[in-house]
Amino acid sequence: MSRLSQVEVEAQLAGYKKLVRKMKQYEEAVGLLYWDMRTGAPKKGLETRSEVVGELSTEIFRMSVSDEMGGYLEVLTAPGQLEELDAISRKMVTESKKEYDESKKIPPDEYQAYVVLTSQAETIWEEAKNNNDFKLFEPYLEKIVATTIKFIDLWGYEGVKYNCLLDMYERGMNVEKLDKVFGALRERIVPLLKQIQASPNHPDRSFLNQQFDKDKQKQFSLFILREMIYDFDAGRLDETAHPFATGLNPGDVRITTRFLPNDPTSALFGTIHEGGHALYEQNIAADLIGTNLCTGTSMGIHESQSLFWENVVGRSRGFWERYYGELQQNFKGQLDDVNVDTFYRAINHIEPSLIRIEADELTYNLHIMIRYELEKSLINGDIKVADLPEAWNAKYKDYLGVEPATDSEGVLQDVHWSGGAFGYFPSYALGYMYAAQITNTLRKQFPEFDDWVAAGHLLPIKEWLADQIHQYGKLLTPDEIILKVSGEPLNPEYLIQYLENKYKHVYGL
Amino acid sequence: MSRLSQVEVEAQLAGYKKLVRKMKQYEEAVGLLYWDMRTGAPKKGLETRSEVVGELSTEIFRMSVSDEMGGYLEVLTAPGQLEELDAISRKMVTESKKEYDESKKIPPDEYQAYVVLTSQAETIWEEAKNNNDFKLFEPYLEKIVATTIKFIDLWGYEGVKYNCLLDMYERGMNVEKLDKVFGALRERIVPLLKQIQASPNHPDRSFLNQQFDKDKQKQFSLFILREMIYDFDAGRLDETAHPFATGLNPGDVRITTRFLPNDPTSALFGTIHEGGHALYEQNIAADLIGTNLCTGTSMGIHESQSLFWENVVGRSRGFWERYYGELQQNFKGQLDDVNVDTFYRAINHIEPSLIRIEADELTYNLHIMIRYELEKSLINGDIKVADLPEAWNAKYKDYLGVEPATDSEGVLQDVHWSGGAFGYFPSYALGYMYAAQITNTLRKQFPEFDDWVAAGHLLPIKEWLADQIHQYGKLLTPDEIILKVSGEPLNPEYLIQYLENKYKHVYGL
Repeated sequence: MSRLSQVEVEAQLAGYKKLVRKMKQYEEAVGLLYWDMRTGAPKKGLETRSEVVGELSTEIFRMSVSDEMGGYLEVLTAPGQLEELDAISRKMVTESKKEYDESKKIPPDEYQAYVVLTSQAETIWEEAKNNNDFKLFEPYLEKIVATTIKFIDLWGYEGVKYNCLLDMYERGMNVEKLDKVFGALRERIVPLLKQIQASPNHPDRSFLNQQFDKDKQKQFSLFILREMIYDFDAGRLDETAHPFATGLNPGDVRITTRFLPNDPTSALFGTIHEGGHALYEQNIAADLIGTNLCTGTSMGIHESQSLFWENVVGRSRGFWERYYGELQQNFKGQLDDVNVDTFYRAINHIEPSLIRIEADELTYNLHIMIRYELEKSLINGDIKVADLPEAWNAKYKDYLGVEPATDSEGVLQDVHWSGGAFGYFPSYALGYMYAAQITNTLRKQFPEFDDWVAAGHLLPIKEWLADQIHQYGKLLTPDEIILKVSGEPLNPEYLIQYLENKYKHVYGL
Repeated sequence: MSRLSQVEVEAQLAGYKKLVRKMKQYEEAVGLLYWDMRTGAPKKGLETRSEVVGELSTEIFRMSVSDEMGGYLEVLTAPGQLEELDAISRKMVTESKKEYDESKKIPPDEYQAYVVLTSQAETIWEEAKNNNDFKLFEPYLEKIVATTIKFIDLWGYEGVKYNCLLDMYERGMNVEKLDKVFGALRERIVPLLKQIQASPNHPDRSFLNQQFDKDKQKQFSLFILREMIYDFDAGRLDETAHPFATGLNPGDVRITTRFLPNDPTSALFGTIHEGGHALYEQNIAADLIGTNLCTGTSMGIHESQSLFWENVVGRSRGFWERYYGELQQNFKGQLDDVNVDTFYRAINHIEPSLIRIEADELTYNLHIMIRYELEKSLINGDIKVADLPEAWNAKYKDYLGVEPATDSEGVLQDVHWSGGAFGYFPSYALGYMYAAQITNTLRKQFPEFDDWVAAGHLLPIKEWLADQIHQYGKLLTPDEIILKVSGEPLNPEYLIQYLENKYKHVYGL
């Protein structure tokens, strides 16, 4: 097509941005519908409510692949055109184009069949998990894997097929990079774990075994969020079975947590974790509102923010020097005989276990590597679905020294694969690595970092993260963010050092 | 156009119903967005949130006037066609056609200008009310009245122009009917009010002047809703500045109330009132879900349900015979010296006042008649906007014997006119009349009605209302409902009798 005039391009760009804003508005509505379904929507309305969510979600997809969108993208990505756009517009268009091309490559009826399949598979997975019946789930998972591979072939990929999926969750990530960082990590933390297990010096956790009042737990969660400078004029805290954070827009980023009567650390660290996610979304720059860049840049960077607050800050010795008195005061009489050191060691207890979501910050990464290796093999065609349970159990024995007695507490424990979310798990481990690497920069730039934490002086930390990471939303890629922040690409060494230093201290190794 | 085959008509009908369902789904999303904004959405997100509401609302309007909708309606309302549809489809199409024709008669740019005007006017009205400055609001109100009259001319009307507006809120209502029923009502309740005022026997309300714990108020609100058989699996109770009920779908009908520390009757009767609205929406038949008939048939019938529960049941002697002990128990020590009779008389205290929303069930109707007469005159061109304050004050003196010292507590008190909602006020008084007429039928059919209330045996009452009224949604018109229920058209005599009987008793006249 012939080159358009500047005025015509401006008009196309304005039309494009209006369409994207509309999609974001629909996404905000869907976000609220989900939040409501999880926090307290009456159960008899849920069937109709699901149809509302389905209708609006379908409409978002329709807009994303509409002729209108196609027309704008054709003009705005014409040779020489993209480079002339301002940085935000250029990045917006690039993201839309990628999404548009990906969606357009899948025949609509195949995509529809896949949506139905994964929807059924989730129900079947739940039944299989409840009945410890992998065979029930197996044919569904086989179809999901086969369809995923088919889609990858349509989308195209560099190197191995699994790279295509990694790139979707973490732009720029591939097997080569991951194998390297995970390899380095495993090599050092497996021996560290063995040392810890052999230590005679295990933390005392017995004092956690008492009843902690729910309202008091909630008061403390609210207190800690205020200390983190979570903005309650741009958010709220509610209760759900599974904690989450959801950014409807930067002025409305909600957190949920859950309160276990006999374990206050669940709500406490769940709240701090989700608070870390929420700080990211609350601090995205105002000029990205209403664009497709108004969200965290990747799952991995997002997780780095939640894990930074949960572990680097929230499970540090300094943090509890500052806040343990307040915690004792909050649960008056219940922690009087427990000193800060005992408490600190208890919340940093390491123990190999079968269940990922209950794992500590050291072994968590091993849970992820197992999943990474298995799904990589599945997608690249190196193992079959039928072989998964055995392979799973073998790896657990190898890496963690534990072995599931049932598939329910083994290969069936996570929902992800039933929804076709292959390539997602590595983001969790990336989050740990990014968090440690970011912390290293923080400590270098601010030698007083630990003093700040120990004084509860968290504002400069929150502001630095907002300035370095949050404000950019999706304008920078994960690679660009980590390079800009730390001066080097992803490097697992920081996490290794962090874990070694911390746990040698906790366990007196 | 030539007549379509049965198969083609079926296809058109299916397409039409799908479009209507989609509109309902959007309405549910908008309903939730509003509920959320009022119950606790963080304030910094509200600007973006308003845009989301605007976008989805605009989309609903677009669908309602779309060529797609026009095409379906043309086929389905073709000569002879409508009569062949089943009752639900026929009524759906009739409603859509009326809405479509009305919307299409207004030029889009004029409608857009009107939306902007009323949006600005509401802000100006608020400022005018706060500063007691009617002159500030006057030019906006003039424009709104002029535009409304212009729209009425485009829509068309029978008799006088104001009829067009009445019919929008209460299908089938007109000035002739209203003048008659309001005339009859006024003729009897103005003397009754004078008698009451002259009575030496005024209720003691002094015991309400103490602090009532908010949580205890809430507990009692929840208790009473359960007694009314409000279904908490299909609803929830929250707190807002202005109480409301919202039916997102029959499985999700939410209530809000407010708790005043020094007046427990505000939350109590507010909750029962909104509970009455909610029972209506919870009990609409399942086969109307997803249709444009899945809502109350009119504002007036809706209000009859809330007022029935609030006043006929909730302010009756029998109700408190059953529940006063529970109330005393709930506010332990605070009502020990107040017997049920004193309480009953206190909650049925009559006093002419300036403010509609604080009025009792007797004088409320006079507040409405004043507004009715004024807006009727405005729309029919008998008075000018500039004359409103004086006319308002004169009528208050005449009907209620009180006179506003300022326009803020006079003509500026209500938001309605700033939004162009002329014709809405009468619905409130119709609600009182319908409620009394329905109660009369109930008492005739069930001589044990009062015993049921006095025993807290509310289930058969709730079920009868669901069976007679709620299940039909908008399938029957208000006229049809009241005729079916009571065997005669709207008759103000029942309200007059109800008020005379009750207040002669309360005031010992």
